[in-house]
Amino acid sequence: MGPHPAVAAIRLAVRRVLQDILTDHPGGSPLVLAACSGGADSMALATALAFEAPKLGIRAGGVTVDHGLQDGSATRAVDVADRLRGLGLAPVDAVEVTVGRQGGPEAAARDARYAALDAVAERAGASAVLLGHTRDDQAETVLLGLARGSGIRSLSGMPAVNGRYRRPFLLLDRDTVRKACLVQGIDVWEDPHNHDPAYTRSRVRHEALPVLEKSLGKGVVEALARTAQLSRDDADALDQWAAQAERTAVDADGGLDVARLLTLPAAVRRRVLRRAAVAAGSPAGSLFARHIEETDRLLTGWRGQKPLNLPGGVAVGRRNGRLFFQAL
Amino acid sequence: MGPHPAVAAIRLAVRRVLQDILTDHPGGSPLVLAACSGGADSMALATALAFEAPKLGIRAGGVTVDHGLQDGSATRAVDVADRLRGLGLAPVDAVEVTVGRQGGPEAAARDARYAALDAVAERAGASAVLLGHTRDDQAETVLLGLARGSGIRSLSGMPAVNGRYRRPFLLLDRDTVRKACLVQGIDVWEDPHNHDPAYTRSRVRHEALPVLEKSLGKGVVEALARTAQLSRDDADALDQWAAQAERTAVDADGGLDVARLLTLPAAVRRRVLRRAAVAAGSPAGSLFARHIEETDRLLTGWRGQKPLNLPGGVAVGRRNGRLFFQAL
Repeated sequence: MGPHPAVAAIRLAVRRVLQDILTDHPGGSPLVLAACSGGADSMALATALAFEAPKLGIRAGGVTVDHGLQDGSATRAVDVADRLRGLGLAPVDAVEVTVGRQGGPEAAARDARYAALDAVAERAGASAVLLGHTRDDQAETVLLGLARGSGIRSLSGMPAVNGRYRRPFLLLDRDTVRKACLVQGIDVWEDPHNHDPAYTRSRVRHEALPVLEKSLGKGVVEALARTAQLSRDDADALDQWAAQAERTAVDADGGLDVARLLTLPAAVRRRVLRRAAVAAGSPAGSLFARHIEETDRLLTGWRGQKPLNLPGGVAVGRRNGRLFFQAL
Repeated sequence: MGPHPAVAAIRLAVRRVLQDILTDHPGGSPLVLAACSGGADSMALATALAFEAPKLGIRAGGVTVDHGLQDGSATRAVDVADRLRGLGLAPVDAVEVTVGRQGGPEAAARDARYAALDAVAERAGASAVLLGHTRDDQAETVLLGLARGSGIRSLSGMPAVNGRYRRPFLLLDRDTVRKACLVQGIDVWEDPHNHDPAYTRSRVRHEALPVLEKSLGKGVVEALARTAQLSRDDADALDQWAAQAERTAVDADGGLDVARLLTLPAAVRRRVLRRAAVAAGSPAGSLFARHIEETDRLLTGWRGQKPLNLPGGVAVGRRNGRLFFQAL
């Protein structure tokens, strides 16, 4: 008798990713780490990694991050590390981080976590770090991006592969992953933050998505995850076009040829303007749609305007049929 | 003392659209119709059109459609037409339509409505038909598109201009438009379907959006409307790229050059495949992402596959480094 279908599903998902990693490391015996909070999704990930890696000649380790935000988090980190060792993973690291405040509590915790995971991966010489995000997490991320209203890049959710990070469960639903934990008898820890309505993601998970499913039908999570993939591909293609268009429009002085820019579709033209502003020193995060629109009016609504000031002390002006972005 | 700010806002929105129409009809005295259900949004539209059009030398008429779906709808249509005439609009038409079943009740009613509006506009020689959709309607449309998960074209909502149709209120929120009705003392009729949870749009309006605002913040409607605009521009640009790429890849026999297609980003390549399938006779509405993905594997996962059958009796196969779409 084979494993429970949920266990088979998580193992298959991890096996595919490991085979991908092997392709990138022919002949080697790469080390792959499971990033694990102790929650059901990442514990399931750790069990599947521990099961599949040895069969492929891959070394499997684990890492857990103590954010220091809750009482007893240090003890829990030690406990999670013990359980990862109990699954046969080695090396296993428990690292403590200090969460700052930049960008809000969720962003600050995420930044600290990835910095720690990067450091552990570097130190251990790991080829890849696996993350336990599921299709449901992806749907939540798309909704959070939608709320920003800043275009399709923010609808693209989380990538399946991003440098050393890989998300084997991105196409699996959370129920399957949790079921796999349950039938394997794995103890899991439920982060109380996941249910704390002070966190936007928690509200999206427990309030917004259930109501969306009720209004729009059960397929909403899948539709959101599919939107992420399609949006990512579309955004990549448009970025590629904009990069190429920028190269064609720029002259020896670094000016952008207005006539050439005006031959581009609006979506590409605006991306070229954004690229040029960022290249001149405007911070991407402070550059809003209205800045780009105002810059675009130097092209589409030209009546001799003065140069504009963009965030980060960058000025953009038009002279002799060319647009110049300059740090002040 | 000027008009109430809400009245000023709806008049300004309509005036801008009328000025646009005038630019397209220099020297003429075009006729513009307000499509009006008798509800607050479209009654507000009718009042603003009646106020602004004469000042610009534009003739202003109205049209109301009786879908015959509710008791007393014929009487109500006569009543709405009378009220439109009372605002000074002429000509005013009340037309009865028969709603079919194709595509579900909402789609069938919409198809019947636009067919009737087209016929009235043709008969009256109208240059434009104004529709009362607000930013809130746009947000609902984006959510409905999101639930399909079929990519950014379905996130683009309703266009501000589409042939003879124009939507002056697409950037105004529903509260402003309703307030404008209220302060002008205009009687309005609330379509009970708007509150009937049997209709998906009604559930989105009364269940999904309020909870999304609660979870994600008050800016959600605006963010969704902005997503519509950005997605539309992006989708237009990618369609343009795909059309051009198709022309470059096609040879004298109508085959598509595989090597050329493989130089394209995935998002563009898939759009080229979709265009070619539709051109060969596959109905766009039956052609799903999985059909395009399977077709794409003739390019990216070629191992001598047999031709595939696509909806509408279209076959696609690969021969001599070329892809052929053929009606069977």
